Amino acid sequence: MHKAQKEKLRDIFIGMRRCFKCGKRASLYLFQHRAAFCREHYLEWYLKRLDETIKEFGMFSREDRVLVAVSGGKDSLSLWDALKKLGYKADGFYIDLGIGEYSEKSRRLCEEFAKARGLKLHILHLGLEIATIPQIKSIEKRPACSYCGQLKRYYMNKLAKDKGYTVIATGHNLDDESATLFSNIINWNMEYLERQSPVLKGGEGFVRKVKPLFKFTEKENALYAFLSGIDFVEEECPFSEGANSIEYKKILSQLEERSPGTKLRFYMDFLRKCRPLLGAKEIDLRACQACGEPTIAELCSVCKLRQRLNSRILSS
Amino acid sequence: MHKAQKEKLRDIFIGMRRCFKCGKRASLYLFQHRAAFCREHYLEWYLKRLDETIKEFGMFSREDRVLVAVSGGKDSLSLWDALKKLGYKADGFYIDLGIGEYSEKSRRLCEEFAKARGLKLHILHLGLEIATIPQIKSIEKRPACSYCGQLKRYYMNKLAKDKGYTVIATGHNLDDESATLFSNIINWNMEYLERQSPVLKGGEGFVRKVKPLFKFTEKENALYAFLSGIDFVEEECPFSEGANSIEYKKILSQLEERSPGTKLRFYMDFLRKCRPLLGAKEIDLRACQACGEPTIAELCSVCKLRQRLNSRILSS
Repeated sequence: MHKAQKEKLRDIFIGMRRCFKCGKRASLYLFQHRAAFCREHYLEWYLKRLDETIKEFGMFSREDRVLVAVSGGKDSLSLWDALKKLGYKADGFYIDLGIGEYSEKSRRLCEEFAKARGLKLHILHLGLEIATIPQIKSIEKRPACSYCGQLKRYYMNKLAKDKGYTVIATGHNLDDESATLFSNIINWNMEYLERQSPVLKGGEGFVRKVKPLFKFTEKENALYAFLSGIDFVEEECPFSEGANSIEYKKILSQLEERSPGTKLRFYMDFLRKCRPLLGAKEIDLRACQACGEPTIAELCSVCKLRQRLNSRILSS
Repeated sequence: MHKAQKEKLRDIFIGMRRCFKCGKRASLYLFQHRAAFCREHYLEWYLKRLDETIKEFGMFSREDRVLVAVSGGKDSLSLWDALKKLGYKADGFYIDLGIGEYSEKSRRLCEEFAKARGLKLHILHLGLEIATIPQIKSIEKRPACSYCGQLKRYYMNKLAKDKGYTVIATGHNLDDESATLFSNIINWNMEYLERQSPVLKGGEGFVRKVKPLFKFTEKENALYAFLSGIDFVEEECPFSEGANSIEYKKILSQLEERSPGTKLRFYMDFLRKCRPLLGAKEIDLRACQACGEPTIAELCSVCKLRQRLNSRILSS
């Protein structure tokens, strides 16, 4: 583990407390839940809470074939590991974005994780399918996170359908989800607010998408990974620009520090009290004329991007 | 002016710019509006914007008899001054809370303001009506702001009805309103969100209540007061505790600094996009058995407080 990561974790390791479950010396203390745990009972608590969340939101059952989108980071690898321990059918899917050493290291960690546990991992090389993120970055003016997210969603959905998976699970955590909610509220993005949910139903060419870790903080997932001996990539993507989302995460952490539990309450009460009032607009989808994937226009956004890339190559 | 107040204002006084209207050397620059003004044209801009807001939200007309709730601070005295300059019928109402020197100074400034302009000011001494805030504080466990706000709303409404005013106007500014909205969202207080509006309709024993300054920041009101030669009390109430609301104001100011205009957009887009979805529950009101004011219970909260005060005096 890197030094920064260790320091981040140290403040929740409180050696003087006793495990809530067995009374042995505790390894960690969760302010949000006012609970101390030893290693063994933290992992037990994490798995139980994850399974309850999956059931509470009807995300999937043990009959479903789950495709876990893995990036090599603590969240998605913890998710995959935990789903397997809970007895779910879960394979991994890694999209190699072609971002130099960062992508190579991430891919290697995913491959090693899968190999050590005898799990099936699909790998897609974005550079072979369309272009690497650095190549796209050289012609697109939008922030990289915008088309990168779009491409990941596109290929996750496509591969899941092609291979017969019934659900796609991503590693979004409470810090991600509460910061996205905060951003959508500060700017009152009503369309995004309507879609803000840990479960996006499938249908009309889309495979169901779920975020089983949305109740766990980044720290809780890092602890799970650390205590389970999972080796994960700690570097942030070098192209991640989201200055605003970092600012929003900082603000929510300030509020959380003053009043532990704020992030979870803010997100859960949104789902419970506000989201039902928003309703969801029906979107008129059709098949993309080029690739057949669902879209609102004649060509889907990925095929349009492919056209822009091709015309750029032809003209140069 | 105090030194702190002057320093607070100095950062928006930018001497090198030219007035947006007349081209003369500007006295100030408003980041939020990207506009520089000389003294004369700032006052003109402020009055025009205030009058437009009053019309846009149908707050009142020149036929209405407006009761302005004044505290002696920059917001409420600026509001009263501006309403008179715009030709509205506006009298003042000061509630003396009996908080030692703070209340004495505030009352004196309101009286001097009214006298200098030949305006009518009603004064109510809370100590003569029920008890002073320090007296209530000695028996109530709630934060002082809670019963103080309740009492002010009660006596404002009562006096307005008794004296035939058709509207009550308060000096709430954009910083107040956006922080209240923020607090109600972080905690998803749906009942408060439904009532969050610059206009609360009258009826059923209530006089209409409006917040004509809700589009102006604290600084903009302080500038209006300063440039109009209004002497106002700069101290905060010594009993104000609102640690959370101060935290929320700080957070919104951080966001405003990164992206000027955030507070106003956050508040206006809530009114435009979100509030219409909330609906407002019908509340079953009846007349208080003791005082006749509207309430949801047999006794209104002020009469209940009076009972608690009386039983305390009898038992001591």
